[in-house]
Amino acid sequence: MKKLTIACSAALALAVSASAGDALIEKAKKAGLKPIPESKTELYKLIDNPKNPITDEKIELGKKLYFDPRLSKSGLISCNFCHNLATGGVDGVGPATGHMWRHNPHHLNSPTVYNAVFAKKQFWDGRSPDLEDQAQGPMQAPPEMAATKQHVEKVVRSIPEYMKAFKHAYNDPKFVPTFKDVADVIAVFERTLVTPSRYDEFLNGCDKALSKEEKEGLKIFIDKGCVSCHNGVALGGTMQPFPVAGKYKYANVGDFKGDKNGMVKVPTLRNILETRPYFHNGAVWTIEEAIEIMGETQLGVKLSKNEVKKIKAFFGALTGKKPYVRYPVLPPSTNKTPKPNLK
Amino acid sequence: MKKLTIACSAALALAVSASAGDALIEKAKKAGLKPIPESKTELYKLIDNPKNPITDEKIELGKKLYFDPRLSKSGLISCNFCHNLATGGVDGVGPATGHMWRHNPHHLNSPTVYNAVFAKKQFWDGRSPDLEDQAQGPMQAPPEMAATKQHVEKVVRSIPEYMKAFKHAYNDPKFVPTFKDVADVIAVFERTLVTPSRYDEFLNGCDKALSKEEKEGLKIFIDKGCVSCHNGVALGGTMQPFPVAGKYKYANVGDFKGDKNGMVKVPTLRNILETRPYFHNGAVWTIEEAIEIMGETQLGVKLSKNEVKKIKAFFGALTGKKPYVRYPVLPPSTNKTPKPNLK
Repeated sequence: MKKLTIACSAALALAVSASAGDALIEKAKKAGLKPIPESKTELYKLIDNPKNPITDEKIELGKKLYFDPRLSKSGLISCNFCHNLATGGVDGVGPATGHMWRHNPHHLNSPTVYNAVFAKKQFWDGRSPDLEDQAQGPMQAPPEMAATKQHVEKVVRSIPEYMKAFKHAYNDPKFVPTFKDVADVIAVFERTLVTPSRYDEFLNGCDKALSKEEKEGLKIFIDKGCVSCHNGVALGGTMQPFPVAGKYKYANVGDFKGDKNGMVKVPTLRNILETRPYFHNGAVWTIEEAIEIMGETQLGVKLSKNEVKKIKAFFGALTGKKPYVRYPVLPPSTNKTPKPNLK
Repeated sequence: MKKLTIACSAALALAVSASAGDALIEKAKKAGLKPIPESKTELYKLIDNPKNPITDEKIELGKKLYFDPRLSKSGLISCNFCHNLATGGVDGVGPATGHMWRHNPHHLNSPTVYNAVFAKKQFWDGRSPDLEDQAQGPMQAPPEMAATKQHVEKVVRSIPEYMKAFKHAYNDPKFVPTFKDVADVIAVFERTLVTPSRYDEFLNGCDKALSKEEKEGLKIFIDKGCVSCHNGVALGGTMQPFPVAGKYKYANVGDFKGDKNGMVKVPTLRNILETRPYFHNGAVWTIEEAIEIMGETQLGVKLSKNEVKKIKAFFGALTGKKPYVRYPVLPPSTNKTPKPNLK
C-alpha cells in the first residue's frame, strides 16, 4: 500500500483544501460521504452515547471484558473471538462459529467491530439500535458465547479486580455490576474502535492523500451509484433492500430474510480489504467478485475489469489506522468463579 | 495481593542480602530453587537457543504468528487460543479444546506458555526437547489447530508482509519460510515470555520482597519436600514419577500414561494461581485441593489447613510481571491465502 499519509499534515489540510478547491472532495461530500472528524470534540459527538458516556475507566474495563473468554459458557469464546481486532475486527470465516463449534443458524458472517459505532443499526437485520444493546446478544446466543446473564454476572462478581474496576468506573463504592453493565462497558470500548484512514484525510481537505487511481476509483464509486447505499461516515450502516434468499443466485446459503421489510444492513466499507469473506453470508471470497456482483445485482451495471480494479484501489485507502491496544492481563479467577462448561 | 516490589531496588539487593544473610534464601538455593536472573545477559544464557537466536525481528514476527488464527485449518484457532497470554498463558478449561471443538484425546490440560522456556522438556510426556520442536505439534494436531505443514506454508507465503518480515528477520532477500521456520519464530517469541516476580527478587537477595506468611509458606514448601520435584528456575519442568491412570484415585479421567517410563512433566508453579484447573488432566479446580492432594499422593504427608494456606500464600509471590504485548494488527489475507475450512 502506498504511504501518502505524510503528504498532508492536519495543519495544512484546510489551506490545501481552500487553494486546491478539489472538485472531487465536493462531489464526494454532496454524494453523502463523510469523513471521520479530525478533532476529538467532533469525533465524540459521533461516537459518544449520553446515556453511557465514554470514560477512560470504562474503556479499560470494557477492553478487558471484550477479551475475556470467561464471559462465555465454555470459558473459551470472547467477543474478540469473532470480532478479532488483529484481523480487521472479524473472524475471517464464512458463518460466525462459536460454542461447541456451532455456526450461525442463518449462516450469517461476523461483521467488523471496527467503526461499528458509525452504523445506524446493529446486526444484519438491524434489530438493535446501538452497541450497548448489541453487545448483549452474542454473549447469550447459543452458537456464540452461549452464556446466561447470571453466568456473566457471577463471573464478574467473583473477581475482586473486576468489582473494584466497576466501582471505580461508576464512582460508586457499592456498585454491583449487572449483565447490562457488562455490555455497557464493552460497548464503550467498542465505541473507541474507529480507524481513520487516508480517505478521511482526503475528505478533510488533503487532496494529496489519495493517489490518482484511488481518486478515479472514488469517482466511479460515486458515479455508478455504489454511494447510494454505502454513504455517511460508515460508508454503510443503514438498512437497504437487498436480494436475499431466493433471488440470491450467486450465494444461495442460509435462510436469512433481512428485517420484517426484507431490508438488510449495509456493511461498512472501511477496512473492507481486511474483512473477507464478503456479504451477510460470507459467500464471496474476493473483493473483485464482490464489487462485480454488487454492480450487477444492486445497480444493474456491468463494471469493467478496469473499473473494478480502480474501485478496489479506492477501497485500499479505506484501510484505517487501528487503535493501539495493549493485550490485557486479565485478573485471575477465584474459587468462586463459575467453572467453564464445554457442553 | 500485597505489593512489596517497591521495598527493594536492584541496587540494594546485594547489600541487603549480605547484611541480612537471610538463612531462608540460602536454604531455598541449597534446595535447588533458582531465580530468574536480573541481568539480561544472565537471562539470555537461560532462554536463548544458539541454533535459533533471539532477535527483535523474530520476536515481533513470532508474536504475530502466535496470534494468527489463519495458521489453523479453520482460521479460528491461534496458539493464543489455548495458551492465552491474557489468562496466565492457559485456556482455563479442563481438556485442551480446538478444531471442531474436539478435546485432547487423553484429556490433557493446556500447560502455560509463560516460562515454558525454563522447562527441560516440553509436553506432558516430555517428548519434545525444546520450544522450536514443541511449536510444531499443536499446529498439526487434529484436535488443536489441525493444519498441515503445507497449509501453514501457503498461508504465510500468500501474505506479502509476512514474506518481507521473514526476509528481514533472516537477512536473506530470497528467504522462503518453511513450516519449521514458522515454528522457529513462534518459539523465539515464546522464549521471551518470562515473568519475574517478588519471589525472584527475594532469591536475588531482597529479603523484604516476601511477606512473613509467604516466607513461612516457602519454608514449608521446602521442608515437606515439594521442592524435590518443583525446583530450578521453573519450579518444575523435569520428568518425574506421578501416579497416573489407575492409581489416580482423585481424578480418574483420560488414558494418559506419561512417557515410556511412566514419567510425567512437572508443571511450573510460576503464576500457578492464574492457571486453574490443575494437574495434567485439569481435574482439580482449587489450589488448596491441589496442594493437599500433592502432599498426600506424592509426599505421603497430610498437610494441615494452615500449612496449605501458607503454601498458597507463597504461590501468590510466584505471580509474575507479564511482558508488555501490543495486540498485533495482522497483515491481511490476499486472494492467494487458502480459505479456512471449518470441517
